[in-house]
Amino acid sequence: MNAKSSQQSTSERASAAMHARDRAARMLGITIVSVRPGAATLRMTIREDMLNGHDVAHGGILFCLADTAFAHACNSYDEVTVASAASVEFLKSACLGDTLTAVASERTRGRRTGVYDVEVHDGEGSLVALFRGKSYTTTGRVSREA
Amino acid sequence: MNAKSSQQSTSERASAAMHARDRAARMLGITIVSVRPGAATLRMTIREDMLNGHDVAHGGILFCLADTAFAHACNSYDEVTVASAASVEFLKSACLGDTLTAVASERTRGRRTGVYDVEVHDGEGSLVALFRGKSYTTTGRVSREA
Amino acid sequence: MNAKSSQQSTSERASAAMHARDRAARMLGITIVSVRPGAATLRMTIREDMLNGHDVAHGGILFCLADTAFAHACNSYDEVTVASAASVEFLKSACLGDTLTAVASERTRGRRTGVYDVEVHDGEGSLVALFRGKSYTTTGRVSREA
Amino acid sequence: MNAKSSQQSTSERASAAMHARDRAARMLGITIVSVRPGAATLRMTIREDMLNGHDVAHGGILFCLADTAFAHACNSYDEVTVASAASVEFLKSACLGDTLTAVASERTRGRRTGVYDVEVHDGEGSLVALFRGKSYTTTGRVSREA
Repeated sequence: MNAKSSQQSTSERASAAMHARDRAARMLGITIVSVRPGAATLRMTIREDMLNGHDVAHGGILFCLADTAFAHACNSYDEVTVASAASVEFLKSACLGDTLTAVASERTRGRRTGVYDVEVHDGEGSLVALFRGKSYTTTGRVSREA
Repeated sequence: MNAKSSQQSTSERASAAMHARDRAARMLGITIVSVRPGAATLRMTIREDMLNGHDVAHGGILFCLADTAFAHACNSYDEVTVASAASVEFLKSACLGDTLTAVASERTRGRRTGVYDVEVHDGEGSLVALFRGKSYTTTGRVSREA
Repeated sequence: MNAKSSQQSTSERASAAMHARDRAARMLGITIVSVRPGAATLRMTIREDMLNGHDVAHGGILFCLADTAFAHACNSYDEVTVASAASVEFLKSACLGDTLTAVASERTRGRRTGVYDVEVHDGEGSLVALFRGKSYTTTGRVSREA
Repeated sequence: MNAKSSQQSTSERASAAMHARDRAARMLGITIVSVRPGAATLRMTIREDMLNGHDVAHGGILFCLADTAFAHACNSYDEVTVASAASVEFLKSACLGDTLTAVASERTRGRRTGVYDVEVHDGEGSLVALFRGKSYTTTGRVSREA
């Protein structure tokens, strides 16, 4: 197995282990579309119980999807990594039944800290939210955290 | 009824109307402790289905609480107001069973836009997260949106 | 002249007009490398009077470069556009004599508001800062503001 | 000398040492009004060479003032502390001749990292900008960095 495919299988193993334990992501019906070193694509469909008082998707629920995509991207090296901060721009409302796709990609990664950007699009390809997360790597392997 | 108590009852009416329709907040067990013009205090207890792959409260779920407190503060004038952007600092993990309190307060409010800060503390009084939200006021009354 | 070259000359005219009036950018020795619709590349060399109390480039001065690149990108349609907010990650110190390059690019642009990202690199190609700016378009032409 | 006045003199010594070396702050005419543990108040008057292409104070120059106030607040324990990130909301333009006051205060401070808020007001007391900075403490004494 060459270096590239080894890194890829590391990412997939870390992502699978994390998702198996991520009860919040499962509660929200988030699915992992793909993961690779420094990047991840996730999906979620807006349900009735995700709507806010203005009858659109709750901003916090959109944030959950983006934040989870960020987590899969920054944990893709199988080193336990947490979010230290994040910011989000809400650009367009998402509605009941919309299937949203979040694409996370690495902007920079140092020894301890990193910056990741996430774009959330709806089913028509419109940009719903822009998210930027700051990561902090602690110790341990994601795949062995159990 | 004087001006102050009239403003207070406006805030309570808007908050109650919004919360009654906020299915995401109900799904998360968020309760409204108090609301007044430009401010709101909300509470949520971390459940098993709010934990992430690192076995602590999912950052997105913490964000949901802070964002909902922000929504009650910025809609407290009974003018329909949405979040345009937000940022959050994650300072301490929250764990299963922790009851978190989010206190939202207004930093500035113009004709259309405002800035609100939210502090989230755990049951021991430790600061879990700092949130800053930017609001945008559209048209209509929160209490008549139904 | 086709549509593309017409848009390009609009961007160059707006940028030149803005830079001619931008006394702060001149004071800091900022130069415009290139501009096109939604994007701009600027440069600045760290001088002795740009150092802070820790003997590296003042974070505010780095911000000035990034913010100016953002201004040229978001004003490149020749519609007067201002910054409503910005965030910056400081990743690496810049030192006396470093020539920094800021590349601004558009992430999204609506009727009134937009989001622009700026990367600042030093002369060795290391990433010094990541900046994200939020723009708000008012009225009037940049090229006729005089 | 009691503990309180000892901490106060530590803050004043660190601030004075830092300001003496801060060539950027001097270039911008920034003055230190007061400093105490975790807090600082600074002042700057908008000069002709601080205006941007829209004829108001350059956002980066406003950021410089806020960022410098943040630096004095987070270095007030005489431990060398740098900015890792910052965000700013621009609420009102500042004009030629305006004297701006920046008040920095600590929101939270851990062993290594902290969060500080800065409010910038103009001479009429209007809020010009809200700034939030994240600090990172390295090693060494500010007062002995020379």
